[in-house]
Amino acid sequence: MSKLSKFYSIGIDVGGTKLSGVLFDGKKILADLTLATPKDNLSHFLIMIKALADPLIERAKKDKIKIAGLGLGIPGVIDKDKKIILKCPNLPLLDRVNLISKIKESLELKTAMDNDANCFVRAEALKGAGKNYKNIFGLTIGTGIGGGWWKEGEIYSGSHGGAGEAGHMIINFESPIDWEKAYHKLTQGDPAQLAEEAFRGDILAEKIYEEIGEMLGLACANIVNLIDPEIIIVGGGVLESSDLFLNFARKIIKKHIINPEAQKIKISKGKFGQLAGAVGAALLISSEL
Amino acid sequence: MSKLSKFYSIGIDVGGTKLSGVLFDGKKILADLTLATPKDNLSHFLIMIKALADPLIERAKKDKIKIAGLGLGIPGVIDKDKKIILKCPNLPLLDRVNLISKIKESLELKTAMDNDANCFVRAEALKGAGKNYKNIFGLTIGTGIGGGWWKEGEIYSGSHGGAGEAGHMIINFESPIDWEKAYHKLTQGDPAQLAEEAFRGDILAEKIYEEIGEMLGLACANIVNLIDPEIIIVGGGVLESSDLFLNFARKIIKKHIINPEAQKIKISKGKFGQLAGAVGAALLISSEL
Repeated sequence: MSKLSKFYSIGIDVGGTKLSGVLFDGKKILADLTLATPKDNLSHFLIMIKALADPLIERAKKDKIKIAGLGLGIPGVIDKDKKIILKCPNLPLLDRVNLISKIKESLELKTAMDNDANCFVRAEALKGAGKNYKNIFGLTIGTGIGGGWWKEGEIYSGSHGGAGEAGHMIINFESPIDWEKAYHKLTQGDPAQLAEEAFRGDILAEKIYEEIGEMLGLACANIVNLIDPEIIIVGGGVLESSDLFLNFARKIIKKHIINPEAQKIKISKGKFGQLAGAVGAALLISSEL
Repeated sequence: MSKLSKFYSIGIDVGGTKLSGVLFDGKKILADLTLATPKDNLSHFLIMIKALADPLIERAKKDKIKIAGLGLGIPGVIDKDKKIILKCPNLPLLDRVNLISKIKESLELKTAMDNDANCFVRAEALKGAGKNYKNIFGLTIGTGIGGGWWKEGEIYSGSHGGAGEAGHMIINFESPIDWEKAYHKLTQGDPAQLAEEAFRGDILAEKIYEEIGEMLGLACANIVNLIDPEIIIVGGGVLESSDLFLNFARKIIKKHIINPEAQKIKISKGKFGQLAGAVGAALLISSEL
């Protein structure tokens, strides 16, 4: 008999294009479900969250196991007390919303939230590609680019809750543009389409992947020169479709890391694939009990 | 009577153009001395270190106070155990040198060393502009650009000793160049000359200062978006000659920090001016006793 009472938790990764939900038992994914993200208004959004959670709740009932709570990964900036979404560029209907109390109105579940990239790195750090490391930087490259830093057992969020925002790194000081915006330009806002073209062997699409890989390598070099983690774990939709650009990134990065020892940095792919964010959201609940 | 026995320490900031030494009593500078940095060979360099230390040792003898040791701030990459200088771009005669044992041969003093930018931030954090803060990023802008991060009472050096290297931030991903190289181009390798021209009111020199300020602002935004310190403290030769560009930097930075709370970041000038690095080097000894 385990000393801990057994429980499940639900994690939902709120993406700019889709909502992914998992039922998680602390070790593995028991069920998962994905729906399109409604972008028209908040009440529609809340209905879809309930539509995603309900079948996972039913699945838990079948096992007669309690659901300890619901965790949410949000693609935006959340205030330090994790109560209010301050800014959600890819899903503006969540701007300044107290999502936790809204969700509690429709679902009788303890609810927590964090930035989606923090959820990604939490999942990989606790249960995935980073579980043997203590100083981990996570990068998600999907619709947008997110970053999160896991250090000594927790998210490092900085003095004002603003750390880890690697996607907003300015990558051209002469005419300032950030990494995420430059990435949007390269993918023309549709990385899924680009991935499909590259998969079919389209030369131009492969060339763009190469550029995405070079950018990733340079961004990683900047991350290493500033914070020098043990490992950088990369995830997100684009990576699923092509491992190719991780090799471009690895080639570039070493040239630009100044400390010879720090050139030992590992760049690895995440273990949980598209569901990492949802797993990390579910772990928000586990970690609070 | 103080419980601690009183002692002095010597700190030497090894710069690309000059060596600055201080005699420090743990609180204030008792004497200081500056000599040109010999760049021809190591034995000449060691003679000048002794020439700098000897009058400070004599000064301590006058007070009949023991010198606990000698600290050195080095403009390069030092190995994690602080024994060997791995790379010293602005003073190649120190490359791969075990400076500590070399100095012990000529001076009978306990010796320690650290990166010069770490020494700068240590001085400002413990005794200067940062003494009321716990999460401090230090930037020195002089012959080159150095960075160091002070967090919870110590230098954060990362998993391989490579953190804090802000000067090596790549600031143009299309044709990769780092901040320090771009700065060298702007100052044509002679910031002292530039400072003099700006001081005399030369329009072009002032325009260059404006550009240096803009770069500083963008680099600070990248630092804040990644690590979100409480305060960034700026020092180094260029700052001494003109406060002007700190205002350019402050204007730029807020536009590029994504987290509204993190926009509260303070950008301040160091307290110890040109001697901050030497004071921080002296504090290497104090902190080891």
